[in-house]
Parts: sequence; C-alpha cells; structure tokens
Amino acid sequence: MCELLGMSANVPTDIRFSFSALARRGGDTGPHKDGWGISFYEQKGCRSFHDPNPSAGSELAQLVKNYPIKSRTVIAHVRKANRGRVALENTHPFTRELWGRAWTFAHNGQLKGIKTLPLSFFRPIGTTDSEHAFCWIMDQLCRTYTDYPPAATLDKEIKRLFHILRQMGVFNALLTDGRSLYASCSKKLCYITRQAPFGTASLIDEDIKVDFSTETTPDDRVSVIATQPLTHDEVWTHLTPDSSAIFRKGAFIG
Amino acid sequence: MCELLGMSANVPTDIRFSFSALARRGGDTGPHKDGWGISFYEQKGCRSFHDPNPSAGSELAQLVKNYPIKSRTVIAHVRKANRGRVALENTHPFTRELWGRAWTFAHNGQLKGIKTLPLSFFRPIGTTDSEHAFCWIMDQLCRTYTDYPPAATLDKEIKRLFHILRQMGVFNALLTDGRSLYASCSKKLCYITRQAPFGTASLIDEDIKVDFSTETTPDDRVSVIATQPLTHDEVWTHLTPDSSAIFRKGAFIG
Repeated sequence: MCELLGMSANVPTDIRFSFSALARRGGDTGPHKDGWGISFYEQKGCRSFHDPNPSAGSELAQLVKNYPIKSRTVIAHVRKANRGRVALENTHPFTRELWGRAWTFAHNGQLKGIKTLPLSFFRPIGTTDSEHAFCWIMDQLCRTYTDYPPAATLDKEIKRLFHILRQMGVFNALLTDGRSLYASCSKKLCYITRQAPFGTASLIDEDIKVDFSTETTPDDRVSVIATQPLTHDEVWTHLTPDSSAIFRKGAFIG
Repeated sequence: MCELLGMSANVPTDIRFSFSALARRGGDTGPHKDGWGISFYEQKGCRSFHDPNPSAGSELAQLVKNYPIKSRTVIAHVRKANRGRVALENTHPFTRELWGRAWTFAHNGQLKGIKTLPLSFFRPIGTTDSEHAFCWIMDQLCRTYTDYPPAATLDKEIKRLFHILRQMGVFNALLTDGRSLYASCSKKLCYITRQAPFGTASLIDEDIKVDFSTETTPDDRVSVIATQPLTHDEVWTHLTPDSSAIFRKGAFIG
C-alpha cells in the first residue's frame, strides 16, 4: 500500500502543511519508505521531485517542505513497494504529455493482469502495475480523441476508464492535467474542501497547527484529497468505495 | 543565447563540479538569468529539477550543488530567453517518453520557421522553438521506428535530423535517452574526456579546484560537453561548426 495526496485550488496555494504530514508517513509515522514524489503545476508547467529514498529522512523532502511553491494542482505519493523494485523509475507520480499538456498520475493498490492490457503509444519506463495502468489510460484517451474533447466528455471518459481499472483490483488513484483532478476510490480515499469562513486545523502526524483565515482571502477554495485524513479537527468526506470524483478550481464537481 | 552542459560517463559520476560553474553563469558570471534546469538519469529513471528563477541565487540550484546525485548521463541548461516567456513550461531540459525510455533535450539558438514543421503525436507544452524542435525529433523517430532500432541506425537517423534542424538556424543542442548523449553543434560546443591518468582542474567561474585522481578509479571515463570550456587548465576540444557528435559510456563515439 501507498498513500496519496492531491490538491485542487482556485488560487495558487501552498501545499506544505499537508505535504509535511504525508512526508512523515514515508518511513516515520507510516511504513511507506520505498520512495516518494510530488508534482506541482504552475500554469501549464509541471515540476516533479522524485526520490527512491524514504521521505521522512529525505533532504529533498526537507527542501520541498521549506520551499514555498504555490500551485493550483498538486499530486504527491509515498510508496510501500509491492510490484516493481525500489528505483527512481518506479517512483510515482508518473508524467506524460498528451494534447500539449503534462498529465500526472499516482496510484495505490495492485491490479491483476494489468500487464495484459495492450499498449501502443505510451509505454512504461519502470516495472510497476501503476505506470502500466497510467500508460493504458493515456493510450485510450489518445486513440479516442485527437485533441482535447469538451470537459464533460473527458470527465465521463476518464470515469469510464477508472471503472474498468477498478474491476482489475485495487485502484485508488489520482490523475491530473493541471486543470482537473480526477480521483478513483476503490476502497480508501477522502477529501476536504476548505473555503470561507476558514478555521484552524491540526495535523495528525505532526505537531503543526494552521489558522487558514490568516493565509487566505474570502474567495479562496482548496480541496485536499488523501488516502487517510491528515488533520484531526476537521471533517473529511470519505469517497464511496468503487467510485470516481472530479475536482476543479478547488471544488468537488461530482 | 543559453548555455548547455552535458555529461556521459561509464560509471555513476558526480556532476556537481561542472554544474556549479554553469549555475554561476545563470545570472552571476553569465547573463543566463531566465531559468535553469538539470536532468539526471539513474538506471532507466530520470529526474529533473527546473526553476524559472536565475540559478545563481536559486535555493533549488543550491540543493543540487550540495546533493551528491551520481549519474551516468546528465543534461543541464541555463536560459537567456528569446522566444517564449520566462515560465516553468519554457524551462529546459524537456522530457518525453519514447519506446519506454525517458528522452531529454536542451537547446541553445533560434530556429526560423520551426513551428511550420508539422507535429502529430508529440506536442509542446510551452511556447519555445526548442520544445517544438524536440517534439519534431521525437515524432520523426516514432514514425520511422515502432521500437528501438539498432544503435548504429539510431545514431545515423538522429544525426540526419540534427542536420535538418541546423539548416533552420542555430541549433546547438543535447539529446539523450540515458544511454547515448547526442550533441549538435551549429556554432559553439566543446567537450573534454577525462580518463586515467587523472589530473586536477580549476573552474573558470568559481574558485574551485578538483583533483580527479582522488575521486576516481583507473577505469572511469567521463566526457563533459559544454557551450564554453568550464575549466582553464585542461584542453577542451571544440566541435566543428555544423556537425554532430555522439558520446556513450563516457567516450566520444564519433
């Protein structure tokens, strides 16, 4: 198992509060010591940090925790390896370009027989089930549409592909093109949407408390999606098992 | 104009000595203040650091300078923007997956009419000439070969594509799949191959001297390719204008 973290916001937002909790679970408060990664979108650009070492003691994770990158869309992952050795090429999130946008993906779970799904254009660099599943999604989208379809069409198609993958095993996953954040919940994924009036929140994994009202404007809206709640004094919504969800500009879309 | 740095080695090698010189040229000893990036290969995995801020004062560049990532293949770039605004998506090196490998590219120069070259599969995320040229190379390779061709075939084809691009303007560029480092020299690119007996070298841009004999074994071989020589007490070979060069396992192949 691994842990996932995603963020969708309507203004560039600092992810450090949530990331510091996830990073602790990478070998400290959690067993996910086989690498970690995080991808931030800034406009159309996307930058990723990957490390096959545990995030809890990682110098790179320390930099990310201290570095005020503000982003509207983030995906992060801490890994407990099951399929695919501990190596940089097997470290999530994975990224591919499609239709002139960077797409990013992270997954927790195992998918039986995923490698029998044929791939034509997008191919895995590493050996994980997860990257194969991601390449399959990209391949399907690329075959079906030569360019960006309307948002409603794309939303429906990605939900359909997620549903197919959930039939093959455990597919808790986050996928984004920097505009929409698509979440698949096989078993375990929850989210919270923070908006005015903002309150305070305290991390479960670390002794950190934040008063969001001092860090936001009244129009800000941020949704955080995670495998398990990251704070103990807010109400997280658990996604229904075997369902998908879409977040855009910080809001739960459906 | 921008500056390029590439490394090909037969053993995982620390790039920090050379990178610290390049980073100084990013807004300090050189005018290349519009972003920088570096990509390291570790086995099949590739990690990149990108920053649209000047490398000379960059916290991220400081981390890279202090972080002993050892790699057989590296491409780095400091940018002086001409085409394409200063933004993360316009920051080199660019990366795409082809045939299950990560390909990385950085360029200096301008290419007239490059955007008239049609693209089918690979598309730019940003707005630079450079990323368009990279996507065109990837598209051409992908159309011609469904999977990795033999090395000699691939070498010849990439040299042919480089030659076409050099007819369109200034195309000093580095391209790699992590195994071979392909260099195109329109006007200005030089290299040095370090091997036993190793000596000492002093950077031009910074008061740093290294005795490579204390850091290497007799079988190590490393080639460093750069826009301008990085050291003042070694003999750098200038590539012939309008030519290509290939480096593999630290050696100049031809």
